[in-house]
Amino acid sequence: MTYQVFDTSLRDGAQREGISYSVVDKLAVARLLDEFGVTFIEGGWPGAMPKDTEFFARARTELKLRNAQLVAFGSTRKAGVHVKDDAQVRALLEAETPAVCLVAKSDVRHVERALRTTLDENLAMVRDTVSFFVAEGRRVFLDCEHFFDGFRFDAKYTASVAATALEAGAEVAVMCDTNGGMLPSMVTRAVGEVAQRLAVLLGVTPEEAVVRLGIHCQNDTSCAVANTIAAVEAGVRHFQCTANGYGERPGNADLFATVANLQLKLGLPVLPEGGLEKMVRVSHAIAEIANLAPDTHQAYVGAAAFAHKAGLHASAIKVDPVLYNHIDPAVVGNDMKILITEMAGRASIELKSRELGVDLAGHPETAARVTNKVKQLEAEGWSFEAADASFELLVRSELGETPVPFSLESYRVIVEHREDGAVVSEATVKVRVRGERVIATAEGNGPVNALDMALRQALSRHYVRIGGFELSDYKVRILEGSHGTGAITRVLVETVDSDGRDWTTVGVHENVVEASWHALVDALTYGVALTQPVG
Amino acid sequence: MTYQVFDTSLRDGAQREGISYSVVDKLAVARLLDEFGVTFIEGGWPGAMPKDTEFFARARTELKLRNAQLVAFGSTRKAGVHVKDDAQVRALLEAETPAVCLVAKSDVRHVERALRTTLDENLAMVRDTVSFFVAEGRRVFLDCEHFFDGFRFDAKYTASVAATALEAGAEVAVMCDTNGGMLPSMVTRAVGEVAQRLAVLLGVTPEEAVVRLGIHCQNDTSCAVANTIAAVEAGVRHFQCTANGYGERPGNADLFATVANLQLKLGLPVLPEGGLEKMVRVSHAIAEIANLAPDTHQAYVGAAAFAHKAGLHASAIKVDPVLYNHIDPAVVGNDMKILITEMAGRASIELKSRELGVDLAGHPETAARVTNKVKQLEAEGWSFEAADASFELLVRSELGETPVPFSLESYRVIVEHREDGAVVSEATVKVRVRGERVIATAEGNGPVNALDMALRQALSRHYVRIGGFELSDYKVRILEGSHGTGAITRVLVETVDSDGRDWTTVGVHENVVEASWHALVDALTYGVALTQPVG
Repeated sequence: MTYQVFDTSLRDGAQREGISYSVVDKLAVARLLDEFGVTFIEGGWPGAMPKDTEFFARARTELKLRNAQLVAFGSTRKAGVHVKDDAQVRALLEAETPAVCLVAKSDVRHVERALRTTLDENLAMVRDTVSFFVAEGRRVFLDCEHFFDGFRFDAKYTASVAATALEAGAEVAVMCDTNGGMLPSMVTRAVGEVAQRLAVLLGVTPEEAVVRLGIHCQNDTSCAVANTIAAVEAGVRHFQCTANGYGERPGNADLFATVANLQLKLGLPVLPEGGLEKMVRVSHAIAEIANLAPDTHQAYVGAAAFAHKAGLHASAIKVDPVLYNHIDPAVVGNDMKILITEMAGRASIELKSRELGVDLAGHPETAARVTNKVKQLEAEGWSFEAADASFELLVRSELGETPVPFSLESYRVIVEHREDGAVVSEATVKVRVRGERVIATAEGNGPVNALDMALRQALSRHYVRIGGFELSDYKVRILEGSHGTGAITRVLVETVDSDGRDWTTVGVHENVVEASWHALVDALTYGVALTQPVG
Repeated sequence: MTYQVFDTSLRDGAQREGISYSVVDKLAVARLLDEFGVTFIEGGWPGAMPKDTEFFARARTELKLRNAQLVAFGSTRKAGVHVKDDAQVRALLEAETPAVCLVAKSDVRHVERALRTTLDENLAMVRDTVSFFVAEGRRVFLDCEHFFDGFRFDAKYTASVAATALEAGAEVAVMCDTNGGMLPSMVTRAVGEVAQRLAVLLGVTPEEAVVRLGIHCQNDTSCAVANTIAAVEAGVRHFQCTANGYGERPGNADLFATVANLQLKLGLPVLPEGGLEKMVRVSHAIAEIANLAPDTHQAYVGAAAFAHKAGLHASAIKVDPVLYNHIDPAVVGNDMKILITEMAGRASIELKSRELGVDLAGHPETAARVTNKVKQLEAEGWSFEAADASFELLVRSELGETPVPFSLESYRVIVEHREDGAVVSEATVKVRVRGERVIATAEGNGPVNALDMALRQALSRHYVRIGGFELSDYKVRILEGSHGTGAITRVLVETVDSDGRDWTTVGVHENVVEASWHALVDALTYGVALTQPVG
């Protein structure tokens, strides 16, 4: 048996607050996970969640998986009910997946106080439900809820739940750290003890027993990835993770860090060839679908995962980049980035400029001027870390290279909530373009949208390509006013052109409309002046 | 020797992009860390960063520490320079801290390729600089940069750097995983081998050697906390962390999770009495000063660290809360929270309402209505997870309990960028208050501020307490429009009254001004209707 990378982003991971996948979202996430190369995709809980029932129905025709098998999640039969009469068991069967993952109580206290049944009936529920799905030709996994807490409280009973499932034909019994209180050394010790007990119960060696175990960790001690690795190092082959560690409370073990650690640090071949380098793209795409901002500091896949800030390091990196990264970022599809910040010296500014195709090495005075200007703007709340296009405009303008496509005379934006309840936004801009004074007025679904529309309308006759630009993302951050300066608003605008190129610009002001204006102006200026039409 | 909790938030942690502490900020963070109970506070790098030099100067008179000692960070002397002639060594001395932390290269490749000096000169730099500060009466720590990579490449040389520092009088030689590539099992193995080698070099037992070692982990494998714990389990007593794990790339070992794990999971007394329960407050206060949103999913201290979402769990929690949390949240100053989400059933809604002082148990129909309404609003982009006041208004309005303090006829907001460059915002509101029609106009530094001002002006004659309300925080989140619905803006408004009570409200609309209007109306309604004047 090789390793089983069991992803539960669409079931356990969906319990993170803020996540609410549509069926279409779920199908898209499943495709990404399959492309990445996981072994199993747990798609949801048919019968309990209507959306999940629909997902499995559509998956049968719409989902063509190349690497993964689809798994449906459900509970063992209810106490005192025949397995064939259990509505949820039926819903699980009707999901028609090649594999099912059943959840069962494995902590004596949970059986008695939450489930309120007898210990024997709980074992019978496990036995009956596993046997039923095995007889139906399904691969069966058993998630043993509260496994580690249960094992500490009554090792014999908890082990017997796992043994019962395996004897009934389950492929793997998964040790779930449901409350997430474990540390790696505790996992190592527990897995050893569980394997010993299971070996006795099943009449096999501990080595044969341990490969029948799985691991599922929550991140409540900030050790979910490390706990998962510890279990694998102790012989476990089946591990359950979620993309980006999304999940209830502090989340689950992050699929990406777990897989990268196993493959790159321990040399275990857990993914098919070519999967690892898709990691950053898959991680960010799933964040996008989950409608969560990607964590810039996430291990391996974060935008800042290989970003160097300190002036000290930036100078040394020029000499020998390999000494300053724990892996080659390209292996996981990431880049080494140099951040532009007040701490950065000229070395960082030069490296960053070179990244953007501007060589400042021959212009020491310009490099110094840019460094000072960046420091000053950052003190006022600007940040160029995510706004390469604005940074490049700044550098080129110091080099005297940036053409100014237009100049502003004035603008006015009106937002009205009218007596009839309608909310309308209207913007008027007055600009000078190539010697001509242009006035344009437009409506939008909000003040910034109206302003964007009016400005494009004013410029599009002179710059035809602007018609192909689209504002693809807009972010607002209120910088705290607790430092006596009054609240400042920072706006990031992402623009995409008709050839699919995108660039990000920044604007800062105490007024959100004016901050947005700055970012919009940079966005159009960059697009007109510094990108070339294709073909 | 007891445990040394060495915090480097103000030095290594400040390298996280987006963080830019003023001197006043640094003093405030130091006070919080001291209150929490860390042993050492590394305050910065005097001589290299002008702000840090000033911090240490002001700390001498302005910082009264009860638990912690202040540490200044600096490099060993430059190659070929006498220690007394080294400008940076002098700056470090002039910081006048009881302890200093020196950084030295301990990887052969870094000595030769980045520092460009000989292996012997590097050892002499360590010996001279440590001896110098010991003679000056300072406690000395040596950060061995790239320790683990160096030890793997040339164990003998790396161990000799640590031994040289300890022989010269350093209290602890710190093993730094500078590039952050370690896993816990690798740390366990390495610490054992280092202790063996060091024992031979120093002529002591491995047990005596290991307590002279420290640990400093970066989070590039998502294992920084686990790696730190592994080192402590292997005998290390000095561990370096940062508050909330802030630091370069994926950051450092999080102080809070590390300390909580050591104390609550391993029973090690690392903090003075009473420190642990300040954890949430200290964590959030430092995030506030760092101007970063607290991570709601952070282990132990996140707002969602003990939050339960699944309907399944919420029903069971009613029975027995202790079965569903890995620790009692109160121990670290946190709360168990029930999240209101589309996944939550009626049990969650009832629990949440009870938390807010509304008993829905006797009103099953209202509970069902609220549940449906919440589901519907959340589908439109609303989120009540962080907006208890808006949730309470919703529940009370379904119970027919909420008075409506005023009704809106219309509003209009104008933002102008004038020809002279001035940006002005003006809002007019027309409302009905207690039978009277009131029109008010106000200016503000942005459209929402102007609207807030105009609305308060219109209402304050009828509701005098409104004069004591203040908008203390304002957050904007653009919800992606990639799902075909067009971008939606969600606004959270935090309001504080003159008695220091605060409450949070939410508004959602495609227009940021209208979304803000909803949140402002809820904020004033809640304040007027559901809080009582004190005294």
